[in-house]
Amino acid sequence: MSLIVAIDIGGTQLRVAVYPPTGTTPLTVKRTATRGVEAGAFERLASLIDSVWPDEPVSAIAVASPGPSDPSRGIILSTPNIPDWVNFPIVELLENRYKVPTWLDNDANLAALGEWRFGAGQGYQDVLYLTISTGIGGGVISEGRMLTGARGMATELGHLTVFPDGPVCSCGKRGHLEAIASGTAIARYARERVLAGRTSSLSALAKITARDVAEAANAGDGLAQETFAYAGKFLGQAVADFLHMFNPAIVIFGGGVSQSGELLFAPMRAAMREHLMTPSYLEGLQMATAQLGDDAGLLGALALAQIKLTQAS
Amino acid sequence: MSLIVAIDIGGTQLRVAVYPPTGTTPLTVKRTATRGVEAGAFERLASLIDSVWPDEPVSAIAVASPGPSDPSRGIILSTPNIPDWVNFPIVELLENRYKVPTWLDNDANLAALGEWRFGAGQGYQDVLYLTISTGIGGGVISEGRMLTGARGMATELGHLTVFPDGPVCSCGKRGHLEAIASGTAIARYARERVLAGRTSSLSALAKITARDVAEAANAGDGLAQETFAYAGKFLGQAVADFLHMFNPAIVIFGGGVSQSGELLFAPMRAAMREHLMTPSYLEGLQMATAQLGDDAGLLGALALAQIKLTQAS
Repeated sequence: MSLIVAIDIGGTQLRVAVYPPTGTTPLTVKRTATRGVEAGAFERLASLIDSVWPDEPVSAIAVASPGPSDPSRGIILSTPNIPDWVNFPIVELLENRYKVPTWLDNDANLAALGEWRFGAGQGYQDVLYLTISTGIGGGVISEGRMLTGARGMATELGHLTVFPDGPVCSCGKRGHLEAIASGTAIARYARERVLAGRTSSLSALAKITARDVAEAANAGDGLAQETFAYAGKFLGQAVADFLHMFNPAIVIFGGGVSQSGELLFAPMRAAMREHLMTPSYLEGLQMATAQLGDDAGLLGALALAQIKLTQAS
Repeated sequence: MSLIVAIDIGGTQLRVAVYPPTGTTPLTVKRTATRGVEAGAFERLASLIDSVWPDEPVSAIAVASPGPSDPSRGIILSTPNIPDWVNFPIVELLENRYKVPTWLDNDANLAALGEWRFGAGQGYQDVLYLTISTGIGGGVISEGRMLTGARGMATELGHLTVFPDGPVCSCGKRGHLEAIASGTAIARYARERVLAGRTSSLSALAKITARDVAEAANAGDGLAQETFAYAGKFLGQAVADFLHMFNPAIVIFGGGVSQSGELLFAPMRAAMREHLMTPSYLEGLQMATAQLGDDAGLLGALALAQIKLTQAS
């Protein structure tokens, strides 16, 4: 196995890293602003890759992309911050240009893979990873394999319907987990109630973020505490469903909102127990915090390339 | 590979079949009443097995059991119709007695496996099987492997929470799919409204079953049609969730209530579309009816034994 080039297509930054055959410390990492609304995003990406492309042989490229993709065909269906990339055949374009095998998956699946191989999930065979930030995503490792489904579209954990008549999700449909427990949803819940006249320390703010709500809750603000209790309740219901569906041995929480800690996790645990058909699902179940931080996408792409190369050899 | 003994522990009947090394036509099938509330269920089962045990070598036994089990430890956690079998180590008991490798799984997972290997799911690698009868259960084949999770408790599809404030489920928790769309739930929905004074042809019946409701709906009864529309709506919401979670290439419906056809499936399809984050999940998706009927448990056990023996060899 020779070098691996990992690419993370972020909303604000494009990142490329060159990894050695073993280990997780990159030989080179470079980044550039995504500027997704401007034309030429692929050309910017290609220039970035060119600038780090090593003299030694490269055995594979792997790409982490946000938003829905079709890994089986190597196509980004859409990605939130680059409006031009609709049904975008990124794998074919990269293979034509760099002449090495290239694979793609969404960043949440790859973060799951990265946490399993290099982070909090090491040593487990059944891992559920849930990232709660602006949106909610996730991935599942089952018996040592990433669960992809027929077309790589499995484990869209943020789009579980938790409250059929609930708020509208970023995807346009109603009542999904992401529409109730994401950072965006937490900020919206508090903002709507402030605008409706609820007394809260948050009403002094021009713009309310999930972080503001967390800080206010920790300082004793009633509305802010109610907001996290509401999000945590539906998160717990969803996690119970995930245990029923996937029966993981460890659940790993990533994303900025997870750092709110017990504000979110205390009501989550209570709701989990309320919805689980049997407490057997909790026996031996580990709950952990993600370890890879910002590098989850790149390290997940590295893991994907390593797995694909091993399967092919 | 030599002969395989398959066992189906049903609520009313214990069934044992001896299968040849290839093919799905049993050499022998025998059954006896379960009489689960009487003592000695294991002894009755063992006598039944003894009575069909062949002179030729047997390579494996596989057992299909209703209710929660722990296949990784070979234990039936509980089974609805045999109250004595709590944490019942059936695999160890059978291995001690018959001296052949023995495997266990729940009947819904095994029906999924059977439909995949021998029924409506043949040729697919990503199969979701959902059985709707007295209860709701199911199983998932993902990339050609049965999804089991860490302890064999994955894919409890009937215990997805579809309506947090909904009716209480057979498991004791509120709002699960089984509590709203099973045959039991359909009958209860109609019965409660008849008792509350709703005008319906069903009010003439001393006892209302899901089949009665289907017949009344087909004859134009308004309450009966509303009942199926309600169940179908939540079923469609759940199927959308299953597509988001597992991304199957085919969904197979089994169980008596599935035979209500469009009464259930028309509202189901409408609700599916209403909850799916993208119609991509429906592209190329097949919907099919189960083919194995009453033999699903035995044939699923046969499939399990074949797979385990292949893995071991």
